[in-house]
Parts: sequence; C-alpha cells; structure tokens
Amino acid sequence: MNAHDAIQLFAKTLANLDKWMEKAEAYAKDRGFEVDVLAQSRLAPDQYSLVKQVQAVCDQAKFAAAYLSGGKAPSHPDNEQTFAELRQRIRKTLDYVATVPESAFANADQQKVAPAWLGGRWFRGSDYLVEMAIPNFFFHASMAYAILRHNGVSLGKMDYIGGITTHEG
Amino acid sequence: MNAHDAIQLFAKTLANLDKWMEKAEAYAKDRGFEVDVLAQSRLAPDQYSLVKQVQAVCDQAKFAAAYLSGGKAPSHPDNEQTFAELRQRIRKTLDYVATVPESAFANADQQKVAPAWLGGRWFRGSDYLVEMAIPNFFFHASMAYAILRHNGVSLGKMDYIGGITTHEG
Repeated sequence: MNAHDAIQLFAKTLANLDKWMEKAEAYAKDRGFEVDVLAQSRLAPDQYSLVKQVQAVCDQAKFAAAYLSGGKAPSHPDNEQTFAELRQRIRKTLDYVATVPESAFANADQQKVAPAWLGGRWFRGSDYLVEMAIPNFFFHASMAYAILRHNGVSLGKMDYIGGITTHEG
Repeated sequence: MNAHDAIQLFAKTLANLDKWMEKAEAYAKDRGFEVDVLAQSRLAPDQYSLVKQVQAVCDQAKFAAAYLSGGKAPSHPDNEQTFAELRQRIRKTLDYVATVPESAFANADQQKVAPAWLGGRWFRGSDYLVEMAIPNFFFHASMAYAILRHNGVSLGKMDYIGGITTHEG
C-alpha cells in the first residue's frame, strides 16, 4: 500500500463515517431526541468527545495528504458543534484530498514531515505513514464509531469496512 | 508500506496492547478489584467483549501474516477467559508472526486470499491488505483500548502509538 492507496483508504473511511452519522441522525429522529446530544458524547471523561474525534480523523487524512505530497493543508478551524457542521467538515476534507493527484505522492517516502508538535524533529515520510498516520487515522475513526455504538446507534462491522473488492471462482 | 511493514506494525501494536493490559492489571490491583471483570466488559450489549476484541485483533495479525505469505496460520482456539490467558494469546500470535520471514511476503500483492466467510469468493492480496486487514486490525485494537479506557484505565495516545522513529535537525 503506497501513500496514495492509504489516502484513498482514508477517504473511503471518511465517507463511511459520514454514513454512520447519517444513521445516527435517523436513530435520533426515530427515538425522538436531538442528535447533537451525541456530538458531546465521549467514552471516558478525559477522552475526546465525538466532535473532537471527527475533527481529529479529518485532520489525520488532511495532513497525511498534505505532508506526503509536499503540499499545504487548508485551514479547517475546529469550530464545529453540530452533526450538520461535522458532516460539512468531512466533506471539506474529502474535497481537499480529492485535489491531490496520485502523481503528487511520487516522493512520499522521502518527504521530511515536521509537524509542530514534534518540536523541531521530523519523520521520514514512510515512517510517518506507518507509525502515525495509519494507526492514528483508524484510532479516531474507530472511536467515533464506538461513541455512536455505545449510544445505541445500530452499526455493524461492514458499516465500518465499507465496500470490498472480491472476485469469483 | 508493503505487506511485511504492515505485519511489523501489527506486531508492534500487539506488543502495545499487551502493555495496556499490564496497565489494567496494575489499575485493578490499585483499586482492589479483580482485573478479569474487565475481560467481559463491552461498549454495547451486542458488541464484542474485551476477550473477543483481543482474540479478533490477534487473528487479524495472524491471518494477514499467513494469507499474505501463502502460509498456514496455526490454530488458536478462542478459549481465553482471563487477562493471563489473553496475554498468552498475544504472545503466541507474536511468536507465529516472527516466524514468517520478510522474503515470504515477496508475492503478497498477488496472493489469492479466500477466507471461509467469503463463501468461495476471494481477495487479491493487495486489496485484502488495504480493504480488510489494516482497517480491521486497528478497529479491534482501538476497541480493546476503548473498553479499558471506558473502565478507567489511564491510557493515552502514545500508549496506543508506541515508539516512533524521528530525526533531529
């Protein structure tokens, strides 16, 4: 799996996340509660709420696309409060990721990735992808899923995985 | 990230999981409860318990190593009940994965991966890695983490990520 494949997988999973949120909206409507209650839900008092999990998973995809293509990520201020706003954040992220062509990742493994939180140190692109971007992306996607699931939204493993490419015979 | 890198990342994350479980044991001892209570914890009544999450994450690593190397996975019956048994399952999985040399993954992308649950259909190795093994592995690892976190075990993101390879200057 090269960097472009990874970014495509992130985009697919963000589109899946959007569907989980749509299912949550239908569930809230059916049960007669305001879906945005779930935006502040969390699994532990000192863990990210759903709002922050969605912002974080979007940022993992956005920054991986930018860092590994040598581009600059657009600014997406973390000001979402509602499901509608979070789903818009997912769309903005998908729109940005779609602008980065496969050819831009040709040098991904050799990119020098120096996020501010590393305080001057840097990752080789290939290490950043394997050690940070992939595990972190799926962590926040899974936590968003878990918060919805914990609150009763009916989701199953194939909602998480999405479409698969299989062959017959 | 090729198949061998992915399997190495899975092994690293399983070793991290073992440390989360060790932290859970220390937490239980400190709080004066039996740690194996957590083995049956789950985030939703119809979602896997911690026991099954750990078995599943081990199996994702084991089967990915076997399928992508064209080898045969050892049988690990799902009979664990306790933390000690689950940690032994992790060790058995790591021991097996360590027996598969990097050279065995040379043909990983072209392997025909036909798990029984596909009912006769099959994945191309490269699709199996991207569409199933990676997202599924991190799903179950994250759910194990989330169950422990939800029950008060003090874990942070770097416990999840583990060691990283960065450079100075």
